[in-house]
Amino acid sequence: MGYSDLRNEMVSAANGTDYAYRDTGSRSEATVPLVLLQHFRGNLDSWDPALIDALAQARRVVTFDNVGVGGSTGTTPDTIEQMALDALAFLAAMGLSEVDLLGFSIGSFVAQRIALTRPTMVRRLVLASAAPQGAAGMHGWAPEVMDAVGTRHTSPEAYLEVFFARSAASRQAGKEALQRMYARTEDRDTVTTWATREAQYDAVCIWGIPDHALLQRLGAIDMPVFVANGDSDPMIPPHYSYLLAGLIPHARVKIYPDSAHGFLFQHHAEFAADVEAFLTSAG
Amino acid sequence: MGYSDLRNEMVSAANGTDYAYRDTGSRSEATVPLVLLQHFRGNLDSWDPALIDALAQARRVVTFDNVGVGGSTGTTPDTIEQMALDALAFLAAMGLSEVDLLGFSIGSFVAQRIALTRPTMVRRLVLASAAPQGAAGMHGWAPEVMDAVGTRHTSPEAYLEVFFARSAASRQAGKEALQRMYARTEDRDTVTTWATREAQYDAVCIWGIPDHALLQRLGAIDMPVFVANGDSDPMIPPHYSYLLAGLIPHARVKIYPDSAHGFLFQHHAEFAADVEAFLTSAG
Repeated sequence: MGYSDLRNEMVSAANGTDYAYRDTGSRSEATVPLVLLQHFRGNLDSWDPALIDALAQARRVVTFDNVGVGGSTGTTPDTIEQMALDALAFLAAMGLSEVDLLGFSIGSFVAQRIALTRPTMVRRLVLASAAPQGAAGMHGWAPEVMDAVGTRHTSPEAYLEVFFARSAASRQAGKEALQRMYARTEDRDTVTTWATREAQYDAVCIWGIPDHALLQRLGAIDMPVFVANGDSDPMIPPHYSYLLAGLIPHARVKIYPDSAHGFLFQHHAEFAADVEAFLTSAG
Repeated sequence: MGYSDLRNEMVSAANGTDYAYRDTGSRSEATVPLVLLQHFRGNLDSWDPALIDALAQARRVVTFDNVGVGGSTGTTPDTIEQMALDALAFLAAMGLSEVDLLGFSIGSFVAQRIALTRPTMVRRLVLASAAPQGAAGMHGWAPEVMDAVGTRHTSPEAYLEVFFARSAASRQAGKEALQRMYARTEDRDTVTTWATREAQYDAVCIWGIPDHALLQRLGAIDMPVFVANGDSDPMIPPHYSYLLAGLIPHARVKIYPDSAHGFLFQHHAEFAADVEAFLTSAG
């Protein structure tokens, strides 16, 4: 069964939240589950099914809505630190004691914080369209980015502006990704609210307060890390992927051509193969 | 005339030093001279003529021995800061007011310091096999590296161990580079002394004292920078190229395959073309 056909499931956690999630992939003894952390304003339907299905070929893949997001109950917090604790509460409710994490955009911020908060729980870390806390020039997103995806109603055209590059090939890939995401018509996830948008953007801006000293924390992320970005991302430029790869002791980095914030949807087959190679590599 | 056939020239600087140098390439009005800063224990003969000749196709290229090194007079200082001032004295003696700089290894440290000391003089900066001051894990080179290239007499085999990768292709490229460097039999440069080796390694270790705060200085290097490294460099791993590219605001980075500290000699044609593209690019 593909990602588009999975039912939405719910799990009740010790923090009082009922979390919406989807659970797919191969239950191999040889792998730990890969848990995905979603982008700004995204819900369960905002993952490209082509990417999830490719990742799920060889391992269990779990997507979820964090507290207050989409179909999960509660109020979205306004700090990455609280989002990390909320994600840990979900993992505990699912009975997961060791996972691989893939964090995308704001989800990559949460993933970094989880790795620093509970390092023994994270076997390997994938950071997509990511940036480190405190990096110079990351205090909020560019006005044109917020004009596109920060307003009350985001159009498909505005989404394409930020998640895909300007070339015809990238735009076409974007339209195909949107078609895959909207192919599901029944039992779609609850749309994220304006309150979630406001809290998440506060968290993004707090994360981006320039503080050079905070960059040093990345030296403590000592599991293998794969850092990946689109070469033309207007939301989080690849500059920050290099910074992550230069500060995390055991990181590899790849910049995908002719792509933007949604490079992992555009290059879904290549990215899934790269993630698979990373998760199964010796080093 | 190729690099191997150039005569050694001397210029007297205001600091009392007579600097040995070689001067080649096209005297185009459209370009500023490209000045090269050499690696640990290297002299004028330690540049691969194939690389210099490729770089010199479209621009003037100047190589020189810094104070106390090879054929230059004086005593090699034990800090990168003083080496930068000594290089600036050479540039003044040559009547050069604006240059592009290519720093290789310890020469990349000096190049960074020059860019921070006199930014108006540096149009563009190429950092090859480079690392930033204060980065974690850079306090002196690995024991096996110093066993190879830090002892009183360095054999060609030991040079190949550090400057080229383990593959047959890389080793063969290394032998060919050495052949090109040793093809010149007359008027070779003076061999660098043990005193130079000692002072330069003190400078390398001082540069490598871990100090996270110093990394922030790179944010002030605001000219375009091209950062390049071999993927298997045992002396300065590519990790530090990512760190440079993540801290310098306008940097591009390229990691060359199956190569080590001397990637720029192994991949001389590709690297020279990349440098040319960088120096002539709009951005």
